Amino acid sequence: MRIAIDAMGGDYAPKEIVEGAILALDVIEPADELLLVGPTQLILDCASSKKIHNPKLHIIDAPEIVGMDESPVEALRKKRNSSLRVMTKITADGQADAVISAGNTGACVAACQMKMRLLPGVKRPGITAVFPTYSGPVTVCDVGANISCKPINLYQYAVMASLYSEHVLGIRKPRIGIMSIGEEDSKGNEVVKKARELIKADPKLNFIGNLEGRDVFSGVCDVVVCEGFVGNVVLKLTESLVSVLFKVIKRELLSTSKLLAWSFGGVMKKIYQRYDYHEYGGAPLLGVNGTAIICHGTSRARTIKNAVLAAKKFHSQQINRLITEHISASNIGDPDEED
Amino acid sequence: MRIAIDAMGGDYAPKEIVEGAILALDVIEPADELLLVGPTQLILDCASSKKIHNPKLHIIDAPEIVGMDESPVEALRKKRNSSLRVMTKITADGQADAVISAGNTGACVAACQMKMRLLPGVKRPGITAVFPTYSGPVTVCDVGANISCKPINLYQYAVMASLYSEHVLGIRKPRIGIMSIGEEDSKGNEVVKKARELIKADPKLNFIGNLEGRDVFSGVCDVVVCEGFVGNVVLKLTESLVSVLFKVIKRELLSTSKLLAWSFGGVMKKIYQRYDYHEYGGAPLLGVNGTAIICHGTSRARTIKNAVLAAKKFHSQQINRLITEHISASNIGDPDEED
Repeated sequence: MRIAIDAMGGDYAPKEIVEGAILALDVIEPADELLLVGPTQLILDCASSKKIHNPKLHIIDAPEIVGMDESPVEALRKKRNSSLRVMTKITADGQADAVISAGNTGACVAACQMKMRLLPGVKRPGITAVFPTYSGPVTVCDVGANISCKPINLYQYAVMASLYSEHVLGIRKPRIGIMSIGEEDSKGNEVVKKARELIKADPKLNFIGNLEGRDVFSGVCDVVVCEGFVGNVVLKLTESLVSVLFKVIKRELLSTSKLLAWSFGGVMKKIYQRYDYHEYGGAPLLGVNGTAIICHGTSRARTIKNAVLAAKKFHSQQINRLITEHISASNIGDPDEED
Repeated sequence: MRIAIDAMGGDYAPKEIVEGAILALDVIEPADELLLVGPTQLILDCASSKKIHNPKLHIIDAPEIVGMDESPVEALRKKRNSSLRVMTKITADGQADAVISAGNTGACVAACQMKMRLLPGVKRPGITAVFPTYSGPVTVCDVGANISCKPINLYQYAVMASLYSEHVLGIRKPRIGIMSIGEEDSKGNEVVKKARELIKADPKLNFIGNLEGRDVFSGVCDVVVCEGFVGNVVLKLTESLVSVLFKVIKRELLSTSKLLAWSFGGVMKKIYQRYDYHEYGGAPLLGVNGTAIICHGTSRARTIKNAVLAAKKFHSQQINRLITEHISASNIGDPDEED
């Protein structure tokens, strides 16, 4: 398997991305190769060790750099030799089987959609984040690819995220819920109500009905379907709330006893390890014709290494074949479909 | 001031609501009176003390009970003698100055809107929740009254929540942000983009631009404007995440050392006290022509007592007069307005 990595995407690019690719060399299999995409000299300069010269690690030159002041989506259109554009192009041409980027999410989604295209029957791709919770991993789709959903998009997110939860996370018959603002069937906006009917109509999905914000972490579901606007708020709120809460606890502990604060530090570390999103590597962009892993902007070398593993697992489980088969067999379309 | 309380609303009604009204007798002022609205005999039966017979506490008979299996909004229409209907009716007639309910939110919003009507110029009411955060209270509007917002609704939420933050919470020039999925101006759906222009156009508002989910707790803003669907998810997710996180910490502590877990218990209690939403009493429904406090379904006697105090503060600060004046003076309307 050949995995292309956007060396220029992310808050700590290119340094941490390049280091991540080097780290990943230790975990890939003999048949795998990594392609680091970005300005060749820059990549060579920032590598901390000679391991960058490895027969399994190729540098694909993409000399154009997207500045901080540029609109990433605009740059995608104009800069044909930017890393994102080159990476998705070579993947579409069959030179790579997967792409990984920690760069601007909107630009990455647009590049994948434009170059790699979508799976047959899929209307819109969805970013699929896994939340490590007390009761096991919860898969949320979409967390930001699509901010104005149609019912058919939400239905397809249910299909794709459920297959992902089952075949990548190993959850049997994942319980799927749709995010709304009350448990009763009558609750929710029009798109949610119509999407619910489409999901219900598919006997192969284990649909449990409406969810509320509290249900993401309560252990009642394995898959949460929502439009990208809501999913993005959920993702970012969760990350921030966890870190703020630890800060609050720390302040309170310090004002009580330094020893207590110190002992708690170790416990906190353990919790961070157990619920660490860096371990998941990144969020797959489900629905594109290929394997695409979108990483957090704050990704470190370790995150990139784990993203490589995530791409390998996604690819080997043939999630895309399962999605295509499910969507073609269920034949569920949008009643108001026009596009 | 006369405050009407829905004795039949909430998971622990009527018992805890009645007890809450009795508790509130100790904190109201000489000129205040409380009106408990519900089936008279039921209210008398569940009161634990003779304090229910108090010249400042009146029982207003509303004999019809809304069953658990009934749609609360449907019941509102059909049962003219239900507590919610009677309570909002007597307030509209001038027999009370404020209403408090911990019952079904949708039904409560509908009843207030139908009977008490809206303030001049206000298009839709918004439920306004205050989040106690590390950096001070953050006011979020709307958290569930209006799930399909127009730009003008979001603009008016900014006005109303800002006045609330300033005059009830005492925050000078509250920093207002609008919930979106990226910081850049270009981010967000069409409603958010148009609402942003309306808010920007009002020089009296201290608008700081787009917010992301992470910003609710990061200390960058005092007011968060969002549509009810998103706000409701934010509210319920936050509540649940905090309690799940404490559970995770407890489990980890217990597996480390019982003594550590025990010491941490005390710290946790302090944190709960400091960030306890029961202390806020409830969320005002801003925009209705009167004072309406919507309480959490899990409200206890203490919550109801605090809701009485919240209603008093809201009323005495004349928030409604300030809202009406601001909206009439700014004269900002919806460009696509048709209703």
